[in-house]
Amino acid sequence: MKLAVIEGDGIGREVIPAAVEVLDAFGLELEKVSLELGYARWERTGSAISEEDIATIKGCDAVLFGAVTTVPDPSYKSVLLTIRKELDLYANVRPVKPLPGITGVTGRNDFDFIIVRENTEGLYSGIEEIGPDLSWTKRVVTRKGSERVAEYACKLAKQRKNKLTIVHKSNVLKSDKLFLDVCRQVASSHGVEYGDMLVDSMAYSLMMRPDKYDVVVTTNIFGDILSDMCAALVGSLGLVPSANIGEKYAFFEPVHGSAPDIAGKGIANPLAAILCVKMLLEWSGRGKEAALIDRAISYILEKKLITPDLGGVSTTAEVGQTVAKYV
Amino acid sequence: MKLAVIEGDGIGREVIPAAVEVLDAFGLELEKVSLELGYARWERTGSAISEEDIATIKGCDAVLFGAVTTVPDPSYKSVLLTIRKELDLYANVRPVKPLPGITGVTGRNDFDFIIVRENTEGLYSGIEEIGPDLSWTKRVVTRKGSERVAEYACKLAKQRKNKLTIVHKSNVLKSDKLFLDVCRQVASSHGVEYGDMLVDSMAYSLMMRPDKYDVVVTTNIFGDILSDMCAALVGSLGLVPSANIGEKYAFFEPVHGSAPDIAGKGIANPLAAILCVKMLLEWSGRGKEAALIDRAISYILEKKLITPDLGGVSTTAEVGQTVAKYV
Ligand SMILES: CC(C)[C@H](C(=O)O)[C@@H](O)C(=O)O
Ligand SMILES: CC(C)[C@H](C(=O)O)[C@@H](O)C(=O)O
Repeated sequence: MKLAVIEGDGIGREVIPAAVEVLDAFGLELEKVSLELGYARWERTGSAISEEDIATIKGCDAVLFGAVTTVPDPSYKSVLLTIRKELDLYANVRPVKPLPGITGVTGRNDFDFIIVRENTEGLYSGIEEIGPDLSWTKRVVTRKGSERVAEYACKLAKQRKNKLTIVHKSNVLKSDKLFLDVCRQVASSHGVEYGDMLVDSMAYSLMMRPDKYDVVVTTNIFGDILSDMCAALVGSLGLVPSANIGEKYAFFEPVHGSAPDIAGKGIANPLAAILCVKMLLEWSGRGKEAALIDRAISYILEKKLITPDLGGVSTTAEVGQTVAKYV
Repeated sequence: MKLAVIEGDGIGREVIPAAVEVLDAFGLELEKVSLELGYARWERTGSAISEEDIATIKGCDAVLFGAVTTVPDPSYKSVLLTIRKELDLYANVRPVKPLPGITGVTGRNDFDFIIVRENTEGLYSGIEEIGPDLSWTKRVVTRKGSERVAEYACKLAKQRKNKLTIVHKSNVLKSDKLFLDVCRQVASSHGVEYGDMLVDSMAYSLMMRPDKYDVVVTTNIFGDILSDMCAALVGSLGLVPSANIGEKYAFFEPVHGSAPDIAGKGIANPLAAILCVKMLLEWSGRGKEAALIDRAISYILEKKLITPDLGGVSTTAEVGQTVAKYV
């Protein structure tokens, strides 16, 4: 396996080295390629990502990504969105699961679900027009786009409790009927038990009854909003990883951003990045190694070998070292 | 003042009479016009709302609305959306404030903010095309639409802590730059202190730090999602009212739906509907009467003269009677 490693900006440069240390500890056969992308790179060269970078990434099987700071240039195209598009990463997968001993804003820890977000269309179509008095964006739903993300979600559901919740707003967006219908068809063809929810009711329900869900599938921006919201259930944006999955490639990134305010201090929590390594291992069929990361995280949480945000005194690097040693 | 009263379906037929009893107790000069709209009406006549109904409503100053059940007919146009559009109700106002002694999922009660949602455009433009393989909806942002909702939000802010948070997704939707820019201009021209947040970060932040906000202004569907989510902060969808405000008309509705599962049992909680009466009184300049409703609600909560969902044994009608007697 060939892995592109992109630290990016801010705390990306701290949490990714910690996560790589954990990955290295498994001694897998793995070739790593480092790329510098993002804000600092833009300052230096005038471009945050180039054609050449994309070619390099396409020469790899997977990407481990930290975070990039948004470039203050109106013509700037997001590095993240560029890569998602170029690699056709159609499913954005965000597990929402409590960590041992950590509770989020609701104090409950009886939930374990995964949000699967369509990652290539919807409001991210890029089809838009900007004017001084009127601007618009086209929200696009296709059968193909809906089908492949539904297939992915159903495959996940079959490995879990076999339950799928389809989230949409088809009472207002008649275009969402296509998404809903396709998801229903796919779920039924796989024998997956399914139900559906309106996105507004779902936002409420995820806060009130997060224990009710197993796999949730939804369109692009609804998944964006709901998954950030659900980080509050887990306790912090610093604790949730994500995977962007395509036919050929996979891309792993913590949900948090580059956090310039705490960057460079060695206090950034690397757990989301380390959980990205876990997702990478699962994706590449190394379930045993992935499970070991869970055990290592339980261990450091129990022993309080954690960063200040969780009440510990460890540095980012120390957390990486402890987890690496454990596995 | 002439008030259209629309109970609608399900528990709308129970909570609205209770709310009307409270309104009547003030002995204001007020002419009421009842309309039957919604599912039951559709079953009876084949139409959920007619041109004539709209003319009747336009002959009134304000509307008190319960809830309607969605009609299972693909050509059905939502009663709610029809009225919002016909009356040009451009600001959807949803206060998020704890009730005395009731805590929501986070257990905190140190927040008091208002979500002002643009209510006429965005993804609710109705401009869409549906096909078997591709469907789309146009998300429209106009200067005029953004300006008037921003004006409304700023007026509210000036009566409160003078703080406005503009919620958008302009890092992806370049069309949202228009909304953001216009809101900034309006806030600045009113001397309102403002900041902005991306909608995904905001969903997270509202759960983590709801105490940080005063007035929140956002586009249509973001407001839809965030305001339902925030009902979990308050404790229940059954406790949050909303106002839809236009230049000429105002329309008040509880955020909850028709809840067919509990309809007809006399157990529906009328507090959201009663809080709608409070908003109606505020809108018509009767601040003293509005404040009296707050005191009455504190009283019934303290004495546990409340419906079963809140741990009481009162019926919907009894709660209405107690509040009416108090005021
Ligand atoms: C940074 C932004 C373009 C991105 C998105 O909107 O998808 C982010 O919020 C995410 O969820 O990965
Ligand atoms: C019923 C539906 C059309 C409506 C909306 O989406 O605006 C509702 O969710 C609301 O928030 O009032």
